[in-house]
Amino acid sequence: MFDSRPMNAALEIARAARDSGEVPVGAVVMRDGEILGSGGNAPRATRDPTAHAEILAIRAACERLGTDRLTDCDLWVTLEPCAMCAGAIVHARIARLYYAASDPKGGAVEHGARIFDQPQCLHRPETYSGIRESEAAALLRDFFRARR
Amino acid sequence: MFDSRPMNAALEIARAARDSGEVPVGAVVMRDGEILGSGGNAPRATRDPTAHAEILAIRAACERLGTDRLTDCDLWVTLEPCAMCAGAIVHARIARLYYAASDPKGGAVEHGARIFDQPQCLHRPETYSGIRESEAAALLRDFFRARR
Repeated sequence: MFDSRPMNAALEIARAARDSGEVPVGAVVMRDGEILGSGGNAPRATRDPTAHAEILAIRAACERLGTDRLTDCDLWVTLEPCAMCAGAIVHARIARLYYAASDPKGGAVEHGARIFDQPQCLHRPETYSGIRESEAAALLRDFFRARR
Repeated sequence: MFDSRPMNAALEIARAARDSGEVPVGAVVMRDGEILGSGGNAPRATRDPTAHAEILAIRAACERLGTDRLTDCDLWVTLEPCAMCAGAIVHARIARLYYAASDPKGGAVEHGARIFDQPQCLHRPETYSGIRESEAAALLRDFFRARR
């Protein structure tokens, strides 16, 4: 049903983030089957609290395309975006959002602030969730279990 | 009641953003009376949809301090933060937020997603609004009027 490559790539990036001691989340921006930008969660390594996977992937794709609007692009990410990242997805005008695991604690798409459901929201990406959910969730669960 | 320097600085940055053709918003991160980072709204110039004043100011202060947590720092900004920026303020653990104009259309502090009021919100900055509101609002109103 879905192209398996983008979420494969996002999961691979999430595993690399984990290996660097970061919460394992990965994201890619795709257009016409091509990855235009990618990012792994990196607030510790970069000492930048905004360095979430989605923000880095969006910034990389914008730099690649020379634009601040990713109108024809899709974002694939291993975890439900937080409020910051959902807001960035709106600003970037991402067409479709695909995410793996849902995040009751920090997510802001189907939980909490539900950014895209706000009446003031200027752009609502088509949203698909649950793709490779168990793999992405296991990656996060194992990461937090190992750190306890 | 408030130190006038940080909002003076933020308004000066907002005027510089306007002169570059950006929506006039400016922000500074302060600690102990010192500006640690600042930013003017710049998504067009930088071709980066995440380049809001608050994000740039937070990233600059984190780079300056070599940390991803701004626990003892205050953020002063000329406009009510959007969902993306409010989320970044949470992630950065900003202690106090001071903003000038409220933003019924895009704000997510006292409007819309009300990020800090979400039960899942992990950190709530003390928030003060309305400081130099008329100046900041006039700057925005004149900007949008001139572009019509």
